[in-house]
Amino acid sequence: MHNGKTYIVTGAASGIGAETCRVLRADGARVIGIDRHEAEDVDEMYLVDLSDKDAVVKLVADLPNDTDGLANIAGVPPTAPADVVLRVNLVGLRALTEGLVDKLADGASIVNLASLAGNGWQTGLPQVKRALALDFDSDISEFCEVEDLDSSGRSYFLGKEALLVWTFQNRWTWRDRGIRINAVSPGPVDTPILGDFAATLGKRFEENMQKLERAGTAEDIAPAVGFLLSDQSKWIRGTNLAVDGGMSAHFLSAQHGF
Amino acid sequence: MHNGKTYIVTGAASGIGAETCRVLRADGARVIGIDRHEAEDVDEMYLVDLSDKDAVVKLVADLPNDTDGLANIAGVPPTAPADVVLRVNLVGLRALTEGLVDKLADGASIVNLASLAGNGWQTGLPQVKRALALDFDSDISEFCEVEDLDSSGRSYFLGKEALLVWTFQNRWTWRDRGIRINAVSPGPVDTPILGDFAATLGKRFEENMQKLERAGTAEDIAPAVGFLLSDQSKWIRGTNLAVDGGMSAHFLSAQHGF
Repeated sequence: MHNGKTYIVTGAASGIGAETCRVLRADGARVIGIDRHEAEDVDEMYLVDLSDKDAVVKLVADLPNDTDGLANIAGVPPTAPADVVLRVNLVGLRALTEGLVDKLADGASIVNLASLAGNGWQTGLPQVKRALALDFDSDISEFCEVEDLDSSGRSYFLGKEALLVWTFQNRWTWRDRGIRINAVSPGPVDTPILGDFAATLGKRFEENMQKLERAGTAEDIAPAVGFLLSDQSKWIRGTNLAVDGGMSAHFLSAQHGF
Repeated sequence: MHNGKTYIVTGAASGIGAETCRVLRADGARVIGIDRHEAEDVDEMYLVDLSDKDAVVKLVADLPNDTDGLANIAGVPPTAPADVVLRVNLVGLRALTEGLVDKLADGASIVNLASLAGNGWQTGLPQVKRALALDFDSDISEFCEVEDLDSSGRSYFLGKEALLVWTFQNRWTWRDRGIRINAVSPGPVDTPILGDFAATLGKRFEENMQKLERAGTAEDIAPAVGFLLSDQSKWIRGTNLAVDGGMSAHFLSAQHGF
């Protein structure tokens, strides 16, 4: 499925990013990793802080041409400062993707790691639109203050909601070159940042975990990312694939009473 | 991904069903086909009319134990009489699945071929709930008359809406045995029934096709069914995977103004 392809994976050093690298390489792909920390299972590595505009601009210039896909897995948890969350999970991700797209091969696939935490995008849409107006030249700290994101703990949710809406928006943006974009939305996954979710969500986290028979693992999520990166999914565009043990179906069921 | 597995595929003789059989067998699976017509690319074949209660009961009794998954692909188009549409696409599908589930292997995967035509399930929910109360012992013809399904052309949409809701409902029904259920929702696909959609939808069909750069093909859809049948997707439960060239994202975008 991935033999002879080259993919770029952010967040390559740990969790779902590291497992995505492993899955792709085990299936014959060449993997270029991006992370703040060294990654183990990659063919080439760029050490970059995706919250830093200059670093992202340099990264785009340094990355090779004609790669077959980009997996935007890097993300910081809800316990990080609100502006850092938006910088890494939304603004940096977009800057990297929009900067890189001209260098991608025709037919390439972009996969964004969203989250079950982004499910509320319809309710949050006015704020989502304001978040999508941000770029690296915006005063992101001021935005977080005006929107009360730090004390409300909403930055992570808002970032994921905006990432989903941005994925839907760009369903056809690069279609003339066969380049497509999709999202994968995991439920609670047993990675280094699971404890941060527990801390932020408190009782709500516990209730969700009681509904699930177990937390997900990076091994549950990476194959879905791999499938959406591959040519096997080339008519899938602007889609959000929930990989959450059934939580989003459960929320639909509770919301609509069926 | 499918090596050494055995899958049951309905609608095996043509279109997406036939391509699903081909994909699974090419990857090392054994495939048991079900259709009204003989299928080419199967290891074993059952000739069955899924609108016939007795035939479905006999089929369930005849099928072997411990198969690894069921792909419910068989479906009749919107040009068929309303009661036949509901019998095959909803009532027969459920009877087969609910009858067979005890015989499936632990960890098996059930995949329902829904449709972009089922996207309106939220709006149609009261009627969807009435449709989900039907079984083979109901007077389905009377239901179609009372609900005005024949002259409104709604039976196909209602059947797919109900199939999606039923998929969400059953996210955890067989979880203690590791059995899961998901849906794949294609957009307009170039199969033997594409012309029936054009006839039923008229102008709406043409408008949708103008948005898409091309219709989908069975080759676009079958790998998604294959992925959801495989163990690679085992934490995916009660999910609807859109494989529609971006149409559902386009509808979201139009509906919410982004």
